[in-house]
Amino acid sequence: MNDAANRSFGSDNNAPVAPEIVEALLAANAGDAVGYGEDAWTERAVACIRQHFGDATGVYFTFNGTGANVASLSSVLQPWEAVLAPASAHLQTDECGALERFSGSKVIPIQTADGKLRPSDIEPFLLAGHDVHFPQPRVVSISQATELGGLYEVAELRELCEFAHRNALLVQMDGARIANAAVALALPLRAVTVDAGVDMLTLGGTKNGLMFGEAICFFGNVAHERAAPYVRKQSMQLAPKMRFIAAQFEALLSDGLWERYAAHANTMATRLLERVRLIAGVRVTRPVRCNAVFATLDRRAIERIQEKFFFYVFDAALPEVRWMTHWATTAADVDDFARCIAAATAGDA
Amino acid sequence: MNDAANRSFGSDNNAPVAPEIVEALLAANAGDAVGYGEDAWTERAVACIRQHFGDATGVYFTFNGTGANVASLSSVLQPWEAVLAPASAHLQTDECGALERFSGSKVIPIQTADGKLRPSDIEPFLLAGHDVHFPQPRVVSISQATELGGLYEVAELRELCEFAHRNALLVQMDGARIANAAVALALPLRAVTVDAGVDMLTLGGTKNGLMFGEAICFFGNVAHERAAPYVRKQSMQLAPKMRFIAAQFEALLSDGLWERYAAHANTMATRLLERVRLIAGVRVTRPVRCNAVFATLDRRAIERIQEKFFFYVFDAALPEVRWMTHWATTAADVDDFARCIAAATAGDA
Amino acid sequence: MNDAANRSFGSDNNAPVAPEIVEALLAANAGDAVGYGEDAWTERAVACIRQHFGDATGVYFTFNGTGANVASLSSVLQPWEAVLAPASAHLQTDECGALERFSGSKVIPIQTADGKLRPSDIEPFLLAGHDVHFPQPRVVSISQATELGGLYEVAELRELCEFAHRNALLVQMDGARIANAAVALALPLRAVTVDAGVDMLTLGGTKNGLMFGEAICFFGNVAHERAAPYVRKQSMQLAPKMRFIAAQFEALLSDGLWERYAAHANTMATRLLERVRLIAGVRVTRPVRCNAVFATLDRRAIERIQEKFFFYVFDAALPEVRWMTHWATTAADVDDFARCIAAATAGDA
Amino acid sequence: MNDAANRSFGSDNNAPVAPEIVEALLAANAGDAVGYGEDAWTERAVACIRQHFGDATGVYFTFNGTGANVASLSSVLQPWEAVLAPASAHLQTDECGALERFSGSKVIPIQTADGKLRPSDIEPFLLAGHDVHFPQPRVVSISQATELGGLYEVAELRELCEFAHRNALLVQMDGARIANAAVALALPLRAVTVDAGVDMLTLGGTKNGLMFGEAICFFGNVAHERAAPYVRKQSMQLAPKMRFIAAQFEALLSDGLWERYAAHANTMATRLLERVRLIAGVRVTRPVRCNAVFATLDRRAIERIQEKFFFYVFDAALPEVRWMTHWATTAADVDDFARCIAAATAGDA
Repeated sequence: MNDAANRSFGSDNNAPVAPEIVEALLAANAGDAVGYGEDAWTERAVACIRQHFGDATGVYFTFNGTGANVASLSSVLQPWEAVLAPASAHLQTDECGALERFSGSKVIPIQTADGKLRPSDIEPFLLAGHDVHFPQPRVVSISQATELGGLYEVAELRELCEFAHRNALLVQMDGARIANAAVALALPLRAVTVDAGVDMLTLGGTKNGLMFGEAICFFGNVAHERAAPYVRKQSMQLAPKMRFIAAQFEALLSDGLWERYAAHANTMATRLLERVRLIAGVRVTRPVRCNAVFATLDRRAIERIQEKFFFYVFDAALPEVRWMTHWATTAADVDDFARCIAAATAGDA
Repeated sequence: MNDAANRSFGSDNNAPVAPEIVEALLAANAGDAVGYGEDAWTERAVACIRQHFGDATGVYFTFNGTGANVASLSSVLQPWEAVLAPASAHLQTDECGALERFSGSKVIPIQTADGKLRPSDIEPFLLAGHDVHFPQPRVVSISQATELGGLYEVAELRELCEFAHRNALLVQMDGARIANAAVALALPLRAVTVDAGVDMLTLGGTKNGLMFGEAICFFGNVAHERAAPYVRKQSMQLAPKMRFIAAQFEALLSDGLWERYAAHANTMATRLLERVRLIAGVRVTRPVRCNAVFATLDRRAIERIQEKFFFYVFDAALPEVRWMTHWATTAADVDDFARCIAAATAGDA
Repeated sequence: MNDAANRSFGSDNNAPVAPEIVEALLAANAGDAVGYGEDAWTERAVACIRQHFGDATGVYFTFNGTGANVASLSSVLQPWEAVLAPASAHLQTDECGALERFSGSKVIPIQTADGKLRPSDIEPFLLAGHDVHFPQPRVVSISQATELGGLYEVAELRELCEFAHRNALLVQMDGARIANAAVALALPLRAVTVDAGVDMLTLGGTKNGLMFGEAICFFGNVAHERAAPYVRKQSMQLAPKMRFIAAQFEALLSDGLWERYAAHANTMATRLLERVRLIAGVRVTRPVRCNAVFATLDRRAIERIQEKFFFYVFDAALPEVRWMTHWATTAADVDDFARCIAAATAGDA
Repeated sequence: MNDAANRSFGSDNNAPVAPEIVEALLAANAGDAVGYGEDAWTERAVACIRQHFGDATGVYFTFNGTGANVASLSSVLQPWEAVLAPASAHLQTDECGALERFSGSKVIPIQTADGKLRPSDIEPFLLAGHDVHFPQPRVVSISQATELGGLYEVAELRELCEFAHRNALLVQMDGARIANAAVALALPLRAVTVDAGVDMLTLGGTKNGLMFGEAICFFGNVAHERAAPYVRKQSMQLAPKMRFIAAQFEALLSDGLWERYAAHANTMATRLLERVRLIAGVRVTRPVRCNAVFATLDRRAIERIQEKFFFYVFDAALPEVRWMTHWATTAADVDDFARCIAAATAGDA
C-alpha cells in the first residue's frame, strides 16, 4: 500500500478527484433525476462531447475503461469476428479476458516494438486464416497514448485508418489517455480521433481527474451504433445515477479542463525524465511523450524506492519500471521522487 | 424527463446522494491512493461490513446492481448450471440477459403470486430435467425486499435456505433493498441474511443514498469465493478508484445511516399508502411493506399525474403503476403527490 | 439399457439406420473428397433440398439437432436478443442451455397447454421488458411436430408467422420431426414450412432413419444467412467428411423415402394407440398426431413394462410416459408391446 | 473441388472410410439401441480405450476434432483461466474461435519455430499478467503430431508435463494424429500420452480412417472430469446414435488397425519425400516425421499441380504447401503426384 504521505507514481488512476470535478459532482447533487441517462446532465454532457467531436457523435457513458473497451467493441463485433490489437494493449493484457468472455470474439495480439500498430503489422493477419476456419478480423484496436507511453502522429493514424477501411476493418481507439495524447501533439481532440479516421473512441475520464466514468464515442455511422444501448446495459455498464458521470464529463470538457489536467501530467513526466535521465543506474527505456516514464534499474534499488513511493514493475524480467504522473503530481513530488531514486541507485554503487 | 422542481416517484435510484455520503466522498478525496482496492478506505469498509455480517464475510465492491448480481452468481456457477429465480426477479426482468451472456448459465424463471420463492415452487424444478440434457440447478436467487415491494420473514428465509442446502443449492440474495427489508422487519442486517442461511448477498448502496456502488458478500465458505476476484475484474466491475465506493459504504454502515435512510423511505411509502388508499379510482394492489406502493388506476389519470411527477407504469396491460419513495422524499412531497393523484383521478369521474 | 432382443419405444433416435441410407453411405465411400462440404455429394444434396423448399434455400448440414437449433438461431440472433419458445421446446428442456452458453441470448419459455405457440401467447412478451433493460425478442421458435406429439395446422402456422413478421420477429422451426408432421398433414414439406411463412428450419435426419446429420434451411433472405458459415464452424458443427451427411440427405429426400419412413412411424403410433386406448389403467393423455403416444399409468406397471421395453417417463410427477415409434418399428413390435402393457396394468388390478 | 479420379493430398480427412470401419458400422446397425451412449457398443468401446490407456481413463466421444478440443478444455477451464498453445495450434488457427465463444477463456498463442512448446516458451507467460488483471494460465495445449508434421519425443513430453504440473498447469493433447505420432515413435499409444504425463487427450478418429468421431480421454483425475458430461452435451457434441461412433472406435483400436492405417499414411509421406526431395524447384521445409510433407515451390507450379491434385497452400506468403497422405493413399498415387510435381516445376525452368 501507498504511504499516504507520498505521491503515487503507480498510475494516473491513483490520483484524487480534481477540484472542478468535485464541484461539478456537488452541483449535480440537486434534487431527483430520472435514472439511466434520461436526465438533463446527460443531455448537456452529450452536447458538450459533440462540440468536441462533431454532431454525429453517438455517446455512451460507462463506469470504467475495461467496460468502455468491451462495450464499444462488442457493439460492432459479431462473436465470430476478431480484434487485431498490439500485444501490449490494455485490452490484451489488463482486462482479464473480459472481451472474450462477454463477446466470444477472439483478440489477436500482434507483437510490436513500441506498442503501435502499422499497416505492415496488420497485413499478414488479413491473409492468415482460411475461410470459415478462422475468426474474421473486423476491428483494429489501438491505444492513444499507447500503454508504453508513446503516441500515434496524425499522419500515422490516417494511414492506419485508411488501410483499415480499405480492408473493411473498423478502427477502435482506447482513449484512456487521449487527453494526454492530444495535448502532447498540440491538437484538438477531434484531430487525433474522428478527423484522422477513427470509428470508435473510448474517451477516458478516470485517468484525467474524474472519480469514475468513461465515454464511448461512435463517429458518424449510425449502423455501428445500433447495438450499443443494449450492449452497454448487458455489459453491466449502464449507471443508474448517470448524472454523476455526465456532470463530471461536462466539467472536464468545458473551459479546457481536460487539457489543463493532461498538460500538467505530461509536464510532470518530462520533469521526471529530466531529473532521472542522468542518474547513473537508471536507463530510460522508451521515449517520454505523455505522462509515463519507463526505465530499467537495479532490482534492489527498485525495492528501496518502493519503500517510499508506490509504482509498478512493468516487466519483471528486466526489470523495467513504469512511473506515471497525473493532474495532481507536483513539481516538488517529482523532485522528491527523483532524489529518492538517485539515493537508492547510489546505494548500489 | 422529470420536472426538476418535483420529486420523482420513479425509483429509489432517482434520489440525490445523501449528505453524509457526500461528506465521506469529500473526505476520501485526500491525496493519492493505490487503485483496485489496495487502499485504506477499502480495508476499513470491508472491516465495517464484517462487523455487520461476521468476520468470515468476503467482500467485493462493484459498480452497480446488475454487476453485483452477475459477478456474485458467476463466481459460483458453472456455465452448465442454472439459477432458479422468480419470474419477477430483477435478474430476470431488468438485466438484459447479462448473466446469460456473461456466464452462459440459464436463468429458470418461476411464476409466483407475490415475487417470493417457496420450497414448493422450487421442488418441481429439481425433478425436471433429465440428466445431462438440462442445466443443473445450482443457485436459488431471491430478492429481499422483493421487486413487488414484499418481504421474506426470517422463518421463510430459513425454511427456504434449509430446503436449498438439503438439495445442494446455494442461496443468493439480491439485496438492492436489503436495508428497507431489515428496517421493515426491525432486525439487524445479518438476521435477514447470513443468520437465516443465505450464502451470498448483494448489498445495495445506490438505492439507499449512495452515488454509486454495491457490495457482494460471501458468507463463510471460502471455496465459493475462489473465483470472485477474477470474475469481478472480468465482469468489468473492478473500480480503479475503489476508495470512492468503499468510503461511501463505510459511512452508510456506520452510525446507523443505512437504517435511518431506509426507515425514512419506508415511512414515506406508508404515508403515501395512507394518502391514496381511500382515493376512489386508485386500487392499491400489493401489501406495502417497504418503500414501494403498487396501484391500478385509469390510464388517462396516469398520464395526467405523469405530467407533474415521474414514475413507471409497471404492468402496461392493467395498467398498474409503481410508486417508490427514498431517503430524500419528504412528507410534503408525498402529500403533493397524493393531492395530484386525487385530482387526476377525480378528473375521470 | 435396452434388451437388444426388443424394440425400443424410447425415441425415434433409438432406431437403426434405414437400409437405403446405408446404401447411400456405402456409395459415398468412393475415393477421396475434399472436406467441409466442398464435394459433389454436398452439392447434390443441397440441390435436392432446394427442389423441396425452393431455389433460394440456404442449406447448412450439422451433426445433430441441438447443433442445428443453436447454429440456426445464433446465425440471426444478437446476444442481446431473445428467443420466445414454448416451455416444452427441446431448445428449452433438452439442450442443456447450449444456446445461452454459445450465443449468450436469453430463451424466454412460454407456458402452453399443448406445446404450441399462438399469437396470444406471444403478445404479452412483446409488451413486457422496458427498453434496454430486457433482451429484445427477435425469434419465435416452434417445433413441428411438437415435443408433445402435436401438430400445427397450416393455417395456424400462417397466422403465427404473419403475426411474428408484423412484429419484426423471425420464425424458426425445429423440424427434428418435420417429416412426421408433413406426412400427418398430407402435405409437401414446403407447405408446412417455407410456404407457411417460416424463416428458418432445422430439417431432421437422425430421427427419420439417418445415422447422423441434420440440415439447417434458411428461406429466401440472404441477409439472415450471412453469419451461418462462421457460426456453423464456431459451433463445432462443420463436418470434416461432410459427404457422409450429404449423401444420407440426398437419399432421404429422393424417391419419397422421407415420407415412407415417417408415414410408417406415424402408422405404428396410431396402431399403438388403438391397442392401448381401451386397456384399463392406461389413460392416453394427448392427441396422437404423429409418432408419439403419451399416457399415464400406474408407477409399478411402468416399472414392469420397462423390464422388457425401453421408454422414458416423461413427467415423473404424474407419472406420464412417452412411447415413440419409428421407421423400423413393426406391427408385431407394437402388438407385443401392447400385450406387455396390458399384462403389466392388469397386474395392478 | 477435387477431381474424383485423383487422390487428394489436401488432408487426411479427405480419405474415404476404411473397410474394417465400414464393416463395424454395418455390424452396429442391428436393431434398436438406447441413445446418447447408454448402449453396448459404447460400453465395449470405452473398455477398449481403457485397455490402451488404463482403467482410470474417462472417455467421452464427440463428433469432430474442434468439438473434442473445446469440450475437453472447457471441462477443466474456468472462464477466467487461459490456455497456452503454440500459435500454430489447430485450436488457435482452425477452430474459428470456438473455445473463446463457447467457454469465454482466452487462448494465448505462443510463437514457436516448429510448432512445439517447451518449458522455456511457457515460462515468460507464467510471470506475465499481474494478478486479477490477466486470465490465469491453467492448461497447456499441445498437438501430437504437431500441425507442422513434427513430433514430441517422450522425453520432451515428460519434461513439459512435469514443468506444467509443477506450475499447477494441466496438459491437454490434441491427438487428431496421435496414431501417426505413436507409430512414428514406435511406441504404444499410452507411452506418448498418459504415461508421459498428459492429463487429457483428444483421440483422433476422423483422420485415421473413420467416417466421423473423436474421443476425449481424461487420465486418472476424476475431479477434472466432473463437468465433462454436461459440457459435452452443452457443446453440441453428444451423439444421439452414439453406437455408430463407438463401434468405429472399437474396431479402430482392435487388431492394431489404428497402427496399420497410421503406419501406411506415414510410409506414404516418406515415399513422397523421397520422390520430391531431389526435384529442382521443390524445397522441403520441415522434417517429415508423420504423414505431412511441407515444401515451398513456385506459385505457378502450384497452380499447375492443383489442376490435377487437391492440396492446400499452407502459407500464402512464401508460398509453402502442405501435402498430406492417409490410410488409402497408394504408392502409385504418390508416384503419380510426384511426377506431376516434377513436370509442373520443370515447366518453370
